[in-house]
Amino acid sequence: MRPRVGHIQFINCFPLFYGLIEKKFLLDIDLIKGNPTDLNRMLAQGELDLAPISSIAYAQNYDQYLLMPDISISADDEVKSIYLFSKYPIEELDQKNIALANISATSQLLLKIIMQNYYRIAPRYFASAPELRAMLMEADAALLIGDDALRAKYRHDQSLYVYDLGHLWKKYSGLPMVFAVWAIRKDFARRYPEQLQVIRKTFVDSIQLSLEQVEAVAAKAAQWEDFTTQYLIEYFRVLRFDFDEAQQQGLLEYYRQAYRLGAIAEVPELVFMDKE
Amino acid sequence: MRPRVGHIQFINCFPLFYGLIEKKFLLDIDLIKGNPTDLNRMLAQGELDLAPISSIAYAQNYDQYLLMPDISISADDEVKSIYLFSKYPIEELDQKNIALANISATSQLLLKIIMQNYYRIAPRYFASAPELRAMLMEADAALLIGDDALRAKYRHDQSLYVYDLGHLWKKYSGLPMVFAVWAIRKDFARRYPEQLQVIRKTFVDSIQLSLEQVEAVAAKAAQWEDFTTQYLIEYFRVLRFDFDEAQQQGLLEYYRQAYRLGAIAEVPELVFMDKE
Repeated sequence: MRPRVGHIQFINCFPLFYGLIEKKFLLDIDLIKGNPTDLNRMLAQGELDLAPISSIAYAQNYDQYLLMPDISISADDEVKSIYLFSKYPIEELDQKNIALANISATSQLLLKIIMQNYYRIAPRYFASAPELRAMLMEADAALLIGDDALRAKYRHDQSLYVYDLGHLWKKYSGLPMVFAVWAIRKDFARRYPEQLQVIRKTFVDSIQLSLEQVEAVAAKAAQWEDFTTQYLIEYFRVLRFDFDEAQQQGLLEYYRQAYRLGAIAEVPELVFMDKE
Repeated sequence: MRPRVGHIQFINCFPLFYGLIEKKFLLDIDLIKGNPTDLNRMLAQGELDLAPISSIAYAQNYDQYLLMPDISISADDEVKSIYLFSKYPIEELDQKNIALANISATSQLLLKIIMQNYYRIAPRYFASAPELRAMLMEADAALLIGDDALRAKYRHDQSLYVYDLGHLWKKYSGLPMVFAVWAIRKDFARRYPEQLQVIRKTFVDSIQLSLEQVEAVAAKAAQWEDFTTQYLIEYFRVLRFDFDEAQQQGLLEYYRQAYRLGAIAEVPELVFMDKE
């Protein structure tokens, strides 16, 4: 059976997808598309062998998983796709209502950490469908992530204050933020170590190829999206797709603060698959 | 939005898939995998723009669809993947029980047509999960199709009689048999005629490329399947992926006989999209 690999059709996963197509690697893996929630569940239940999952999802199931080295979705300052849109300056949001896009526990928690630990304020949060106009009818600020955030920022009302959560995290923690990692089921890694090495190398090479050809990648993505090529080039350039020591430290710091907020049961170890 | 194109992970769809990968066309379409039943439903409900569907599924919804020219899954004699396994010679199956794999209305009906119209016998049919050993515990013969049939034939008990339904159809009707066609929703064809032409050309070129490189295609498929490369080369060579005049006549003859058996409400027209 082909290795079953999850794929999220977010723009930030497009560079990897582009590289896999260029390398004709989809003949060698069974790429299964899904939204993040479905992929989390499918990986946990063994319906996938490896998948991109959010940092929080890794913390919840890390005893079953190994991390793929050298690949993540991170930012070392601006991330350009996780925005708080606010009617007031952020420091004035104490006791105000904030609507949270209901599709990313990792980013929701990042906002709560920033508010509590750095701004020392306590807004009231509620989950919402990711539609900016509707969110701001009921709330004073709204958190959007991913393609929704990109779109909203692209054409947002200039009267709103806009905060990039990657930037805020870097400003206060001094560290990069890791939003997603690639997790491999331990049972798959044990049974198919050679296939896994091929996958790892191909993934790293695919990202590398896409970063070298970022204009072509952005042009292809722009063909089917509401964004210009130039906008996507900038987006792909601020994202970090590697997973170096500083990023690992950023992720562990995020976990420690999440743990102190009671959002995760323990601070997970970062356990990587072997290289070779 | 990328055109939403259905894909069935049967071996007989692999040559098209292989060609699409070689041409890096998966950046231009959203390929959605599913089993035939799901794809039939998704196409009928507008969740897909085009998809491979069985000949019977086309007859049931043809007023909503156009056919893609020059592409089908057909055979002009042996099909090597639709087999009746029988404890008795086929002409002795009158009043005997036949288990039918419950995954292909088109092939089930082909067997009933052959039995009634050519052998003039009336077995009793019942649907069953596609597992040969279990089927033959309850029946005197069993119809298997697709990858299940390939596998069963590959290692079948030599004491059974084995009949290839493509061969029987050719022997008695004198015509090719068309098992699946690519159907396009009319609303998609109307709105995106240029995209559709690109898809059509790429599909035809992809099949062409795979037939020219059939050894490589079979070797790649064999890597993940229970079959040898040589066996798959023979299989891909007996299949016909085009859709010429004789195949269209074969399909219409099949529909006429299906109609006389009361299996479809009317004999559908074969209405193709424009070329150019």
